[in-house]
Amino acid sequence: MSFRASVLTLYPQMFPGPLGISLCGEALARGAWSLEARDIRDFGRGRHRAVDDTPAGGGPGMVIRADVLAQAIDAASPPEDPRPRLLMSPRGRPLTQKRVRALAEGPGAVIVCGRFEGVDERVIEARGLEEVSIGDYVLSGGEIAAIVVLDAIVRLLPGVMGAAASGDEESFESGLLEYPHYTRPRAFEGREIPEILLSGNHAAVARWRRAQALALTRARRPDLLEPPVNDV
Amino acid sequence: MSFRASVLTLYPQMFPGPLGISLCGEALARGAWSLEARDIRDFGRGRHRAVDDTPAGGGPGMVIRADVLAQAIDAASPPEDPRPRLLMSPRGRPLTQKRVRALAEGPGAVIVCGRFEGVDERVIEARGLEEVSIGDYVLSGGEIAAIVVLDAIVRLLPGVMGAAASGDEESFESGLLEYPHYTRPRAFEGREIPEILLSGNHAAVARWRRAQALALTRARRPDLLEPPVNDV
Repeated sequence: MSFRASVLTLYPQMFPGPLGISLCGEALARGAWSLEARDIRDFGRGRHRAVDDTPAGGGPGMVIRADVLAQAIDAASPPEDPRPRLLMSPRGRPLTQKRVRALAEGPGAVIVCGRFEGVDERVIEARGLEEVSIGDYVLSGGEIAAIVVLDAIVRLLPGVMGAAASGDEESFESGLLEYPHYTRPRAFEGREIPEILLSGNHAAVARWRRAQALALTRARRPDLLEPPVNDV
Repeated sequence: MSFRASVLTLYPQMFPGPLGISLCGEALARGAWSLEARDIRDFGRGRHRAVDDTPAGGGPGMVIRADVLAQAIDAASPPEDPRPRLLMSPRGRPLTQKRVRALAEGPGAVIVCGRFEGVDERVIEARGLEEVSIGDYVLSGGEIAAIVVLDAIVRLLPGVMGAAASGDEESFESGLLEYPHYTRPRAFEGREIPEILLSGNHAAVARWRRAQALALTRARRPDLLEPPVNDV
């Protein structure tokens, strides 16, 4: 069984979008994973298929109704569905490569894309939605965040990337930012490739790269060198 | 002058993609921003328009050539172009809402999408590319990260969102995760809207929401309650 993704959204036409092109698109075409985008509005109420209402207690914006979203979830994912149910939300736990890998090893994912002010808390509880954030910034909706999560997952599925991927992966996992890369030409606008990389001395190259990675991480991401606050 | 985005990519067909739909798409259609996707391969070398080569010093994958990418950047963004030049990369500084807001207040952005193992370090230096990461996970390329950055920016452009957006924005800026939302119906599968939200007592509602936001932040994101390690 290949990885099965079901996305619940008010904008099903956003899918597959960039996931239909290049690496993920080729994997989709040959069945390495599957994707269905379901329209939450199909379960909307009344003649206008309303999916939202004003927040209890007042405040700006609109909130997606628990009953509407629960019906949409139940249609995509019956109670016995083993797939985790994610809700893309800036309130969620930050996505990590570790969580991505765990998802890629599972049967798939049901991904709910929030819009407007948010989603009624009771459907989050009642349907066991795992709130996931892709970063500390605000998007116009959860769709693009869902595309991020799926791209990160799909590249890890068996057979999707060649051996080239593994180095990349491991370097991220070393907990350091990647060392600088160089390729031909040897001189570019008067800038040379560092001599050591052309020396043929593999041990020296490895030492140099490690030192560069450490210096870069210290400068840009000192938080990666500290014990994690939040291990998900 | 409206916000001008130029994206340099090996997959121009990924754009506008989800940015052509809903909020960002409507803003694009009425000229609140503009988007051009340029193909780096137009500047490739030889009969096969090669854009990459093997890494100096060895290792897996391929590296995008400095000379090819520099030509592509220069064609999109001459030296006098006031727009910042971003390179989407997991090595970059983490994107924050503060950086998004600063970008939205500027003239636009030139966004380079990395692929393969990375980009020759010398073009990053020579063209002053600002490396930006959308999160601590690995994507198949920079395109989806560019879509994330642009979506976050465009929703902040003048006239793109109504007043509804501002509350959302401010709540993110309070440094706390958002309190839970509720809307009709009053009872959902035996779960009631918390009594206090129906009380009409605005001060009590505000206190309850603040306490909820604080408890949620403490549970999920204790890092947000500490002084920032990394203020960009």
